[in-house]
Amino acid sequence: MRSMSHTLSLQTSGRGLVPITDAVQDWLASVARGRGANGVLTLFCRHTSASLLVQENADPEVLADLDRFFGRLVPDGDALFRHTAEGADDMPAHVRTALTQVHLSIPVVEGKLTLGTWQAIYLFEHRRRPHRREVVLQYLGT
Amino acid sequence: MRSMSHTLSLQTSGRGLVPITDAVQDWLASVARGRGANGVLTLFCRHTSASLLVQENADPEVLADLDRFFGRLVPDGDALFRHTAEGADDMPAHVRTALTQVHLSIPVVEGKLTLGTWQAIYLFEHRRRPHRREVVLQYLGT
Amino acid sequence: MRSMSHTLSLQTSGRGLVPITDAVQDWLASVARGRGANGVLTLFCRHTSASLLVQENADPEVLADLDRFFGRLVPDGDALFRHTAEGADDMPAHVRTALTQVHLSIPVVEGKLTLGTWQAIYLFEHRRRPHRREVVLQYLGT
Repeated sequence: MRSMSHTLSLQTSGRGLVPITDAVQDWLASVARGRGANGVLTLFCRHTSASLLVQENADPEVLADLDRFFGRLVPDGDALFRHTAEGADDMPAHVRTALTQVHLSIPVVEGKLTLGTWQAIYLFEHRRRPHRREVVLQYLGT
Repeated sequence: MRSMSHTLSLQTSGRGLVPITDAVQDWLASVARGRGANGVLTLFCRHTSASLLVQENADPEVLADLDRFFGRLVPDGDALFRHTAEGADDMPAHVRTALTQVHLSIPVVEGKLTLGTWQAIYLFEHRRRPHRREVVLQYLGT
Repeated sequence: MRSMSHTLSLQTSGRGLVPITDAVQDWLASVARGRGANGVLTLFCRHTSASLLVQENADPEVLADLDRFFGRLVPDGDALFRHTAEGADDMPAHVRTALTQVHLSIPVVEGKLTLGTWQAIYLFEHRRRPHRREVVLQYLGT
């Protein structure tokens, strides 16, 4: 049984979903080293205004619609919010993070993530400006 | 320390919550084999229009209310959405999945899930038509 | 590889976010016992009307805004709901729990949670009255 971790560092270009499946799989492959690896991969986003999401990998319009939905549900500059010192998109970014999540656990079977055919992993940037984001990857298993 | 996995295959009958606690516990019992099993059970739904939820196991009206709430929050055929090729309920299904989650991690102590008295595990089908769904179960522990 | 668990018992004072980072870290430190502990900490909230959240640790206004947002999104006494026997805030509490989550998985590297600089762990009480709540902590790792 092994425990291995790695921090993925990403530059976002503002609000929207950034695919990270390839980067995650590349790291997992380097850890699995061709052996039969069975266990769990945990991903953890170290921020309160960006989150993780498993979503469709086919039509980019799905990703745009997701962002549009959250933009309508939690409008920037909403008069409800009092925490406004960091900008009109800051508190909405915290809410969007709370409505999604900062962690993912994905079973690994024989060295591969058990993602479905249409699934991909995304970092969801909720701030309007580009940010540097860190996602911790942790593999625990054989 | 052991790592064991199994894929649960389910037929849904359209939108709504399907209880899977018994199926999950049965598999866990077969893996625990009467020994003191301590670890974590990870569940992973391999879809982008169905999700996993821990919710009340007592009053079925709670499940109906949950579905009603999501139906109002993300209406089928919402003019906001551009990804409409797969039907009026497809993009809402993706959003509902994003608002809940596709993974669950539940500690296992002495061979049993640490669910609370009122908790049950559900697969949440978000499409209107019946679908075949897969949930990966992964036990990692002693 | 070790598997250790503990149940954190908390008294809430009604709706709102209760910080639990210190209690979680204290338990982890007692388990890590000065050794290089690498693995995953799983938290599991054993209720259907309280949940877990990773959110900002700096400005308390963020927590108040989060609660205000959920209060507007899922109003107490909403006429949509039929499960009303346990009070006007009961079904909204179930929905708020579904929109956040009852489990968290956080990688542990060298004995420490990999939380970001601005992150803290909260129990989110969704009922108006005080409740006693249980959160299972499970450490799996070296």
